[in-house]
Amino acid sequence: MPAERDRQHKDAIARRGLMLVLSSPSGAGKTTLSRKLLEADPGIELSVSVTTRKQRSGEIDGRDYHFIDAQRFETMVKRGELLEWAQVFGHHYGTPRAPVEAALLSGHDILFDIDWQGTQQLREKADHDLVSVFVLPPSMPDLERRLRRRAQDSDEVIRARMATAAEEMSHWAEYDYVVINTDIDRAFAEVQTILAAERLKRERQTGLSDFVRRLQAQL
Amino acid sequence: MPAERDRQHKDAIARRGLMLVLSSPSGAGKTTLSRKLLEADPGIELSVSVTTRKQRSGEIDGRDYHFIDAQRFETMVKRGELLEWAQVFGHHYGTPRAPVEAALLSGHDILFDIDWQGTQQLREKADHDLVSVFVLPPSMPDLERRLRRRAQDSDEVIRARMATAAEEMSHWAEYDYVVINTDIDRAFAEVQTILAAERLKRERQTGLSDFVRRLQAQL
Repeated sequence: MPAERDRQHKDAIARRGLMLVLSSPSGAGKTTLSRKLLEADPGIELSVSVTTRKQRSGEIDGRDYHFIDAQRFETMVKRGELLEWAQVFGHHYGTPRAPVEAALLSGHDILFDIDWQGTQQLREKADHDLVSVFVLPPSMPDLERRLRRRAQDSDEVIRARMATAAEEMSHWAEYDYVVINTDIDRAFAEVQTILAAERLKRERQTGLSDFVRRLQAQL
Repeated sequence: MPAERDRQHKDAIARRGLMLVLSSPSGAGKTTLSRKLLEADPGIELSVSVTTRKQRSGEIDGRDYHFIDAQRFETMVKRGELLEWAQVFGHHYGTPRAPVEAALLSGHDILFDIDWQGTQQLREKADHDLVSVFVLPPSMPDLERRLRRRAQDSDEVIRARMATAAEEMSHWAEYDYVVINTDIDRAFAEVQTILAAERLKRERQTGLSDFVRRLQAQL
């Protein structure tokens, strides 16, 4: 329904795209919600990061990541060509600015499946275009069940993941919207609702000025 | 669906209500959309204005208006007890502040079916609580058809109404959201989507801080 409405609107009113950020502590459902949204809504695409880590078998350059070397990464940082970047286990990851800006200009939305640190950087550089959603688990026992279900980790590793999740959770107050993932279908409907409403924001409907002028000229 | 989701949320997370303003040039569907929303969603109520005009037969004091005299109205203005007010054909109309604030505190939303002048006053006094939606007609011939359908006005009166509508329309850019009423069911779904998303805003979910603290305490 949101996708349908959006398509009908596009016929009439030009729109600037938006950047939708989904963050959550690991295990709270962010990745499932992202996948469902990309499947359901042709108007939104996942941002493809650059990375200095080696390409793994099964990964496709340009789809999963843009694989680049450390020198190229350094140049991109210096030239301000990355909207956000981070170092994880000695490798660099970043979001190139140019494809995001091209998408926004053409009225396409971009999805970011990133943590609170990436979100803070995006917010500095793209405040008006950013729509940030934080996903919380309904309870810690529920989060633990989900973490146990998806991997055969030892109790010790699970405890460490839970402690990290509790820390990540403390950043909920930096987000525009908060969704509690009690039920994945309901949480998904809520994310779709947020996206559909944000597409109706006056400031994103860049064709409205012309539209109203045409209306007034019909008199 | 939004009402259902909202009820489930209320069980868990305390929420501050919001003030939903629907404005449009006359004939563009604002009143129909308001009626449909009040029928469909038990979480939102229409604001009841005070007025100095005489009670008409069929009107109920306290439901349609609070009927008060000019002196009482003057006192309310002086004491800052009105969120917005206006004079129309020699009579005064205004929105009392106290019931709105009580509703917001208890997590109930209030609907305002007012014009851009009232909206400007509300915005000054209640910026964070305000969610403003402007409804546009798809075309002027369409607006004219709707105006002709609902009354037996002369061509001259219709022309005057159309000119007024074109003026009112020029205030679209002061609103948070813009909905184009090409189809009443779609426009209604869009208003419901906006309301549902705004209820998920982090700043309105006043119980989140406690909720996250309880989560973290479960570790």
